[in-house]
Amino acid sequence: MLGRYFSDQTCSVARSLEVVGERWSLLIVRDILLGINRFDDLVSSLGITRTVLSNRLHHLVDEGVLEKRVYQNGPNRSEYLLTDKGMGLTPVIAHLMWWGDSHYPEAEGPPRVLLHHPCGGAVSGRFFCSGCASQVEPGEVMTRSGPGLRKDHGDCAERPLPPVARTGSAAGES
Amino acid sequence: MLGRYFSDQTCSVARSLEVVGERWSLLIVRDILLGINRFDDLVSSLGITRTVLSNRLHHLVDEGVLEKRVYQNGPNRSEYLLTDKGMGLTPVIAHLMWWGDSHYPEAEGPPRVLLHHPCGGAVSGRFFCSGCASQVEPGEVMTRSGPGLRKDHGDCAERPLPPVARTGSAAGES
Repeated sequence: MLGRYFSDQTCSVARSLEVVGERWSLLIVRDILLGINRFDDLVSSLGITRTVLSNRLHHLVDEGVLEKRVYQNGPNRSEYLLTDKGMGLTPVIAHLMWWGDSHYPEAEGPPRVLLHHPCGGAVSGRFFCSGCASQVEPGEVMTRSGPGLRKDHGDCAERPLPPVARTGSAAGES
Repeated sequence: MLGRYFSDQTCSVARSLEVVGERWSLLIVRDILLGINRFDDLVSSLGITRTVLSNRLHHLVDEGVLEKRVYQNGPNRSEYLLTDKGMGLTPVIAHLMWWGDSHYPEAEGPPRVLLHHPCGGAVSGRFFCSGCASQVEPGEVMTRSGPGLRKDHGDCAERPLPPVARTGSAAGES
């Protein structure tokens, strides 16, 4: 387990990765989102050892991401459900999926798609501004330190996210 | 490196995690988003060993997430910039940050905030439907296998994402 591996960092990204940043953890959450919630089904879906799966599930239950529920007594069989907190990881999983779809596409098309339940339209993720109620392009996002940032962790200046490297792939450079 | 650790999975989430799922990789991307792009600055910001940082940067450059650029000759000094592909990870980082802000809050408030450059409003992430052009609540998202899914990797039925566990924290149960 990561434990407080990143504990000297005042950063919510690091804090989240302490909980779900270990190898397999986000794939376990993905599988449970897809409706695979029993131990043996997770073992065969993931190709993970029983010991590692058991450790990861234990950690995710301890952190309140999953809830373990007995569905059969004698012998006891349990399944794992996402809590509200666990469901809150859906956008992280979705954006990892879309990033993979864009940059490592399968020849036949995406392995999975997300659809809007009432209308069947394709779902995508957007940034949105609560100030002017408009959609925000990634290049319009800027970051500012908030009240919880320790003084030794950077300045308070507002600054835009950095420009991207515009020269194409490094492999193409001489 | 993860290499093709998850290679038996036809899944864009797994494919993405092969590239950025190792410990530190997403924090390196986060730091470069925040404008920390030189090797020594990354070492001190992250508290990471030089060897591990070097390995991670090499992998991220190989995958086209970062571009290495010499900014001083004799002795050579390099900095790392995000490519368009690397900037595409911004929503993943942002949602990990918001999830951490929600579930592991600092007493004083969030360490960092994302703002809309033109108006200064708070930026948040939303699901959006391309069919009916409306905002989509997480409970309205359903998943369906796409054309790239191998036949042995699940069915083709549309299904909603699962209901969350509604019984409160497991610790509160008898």
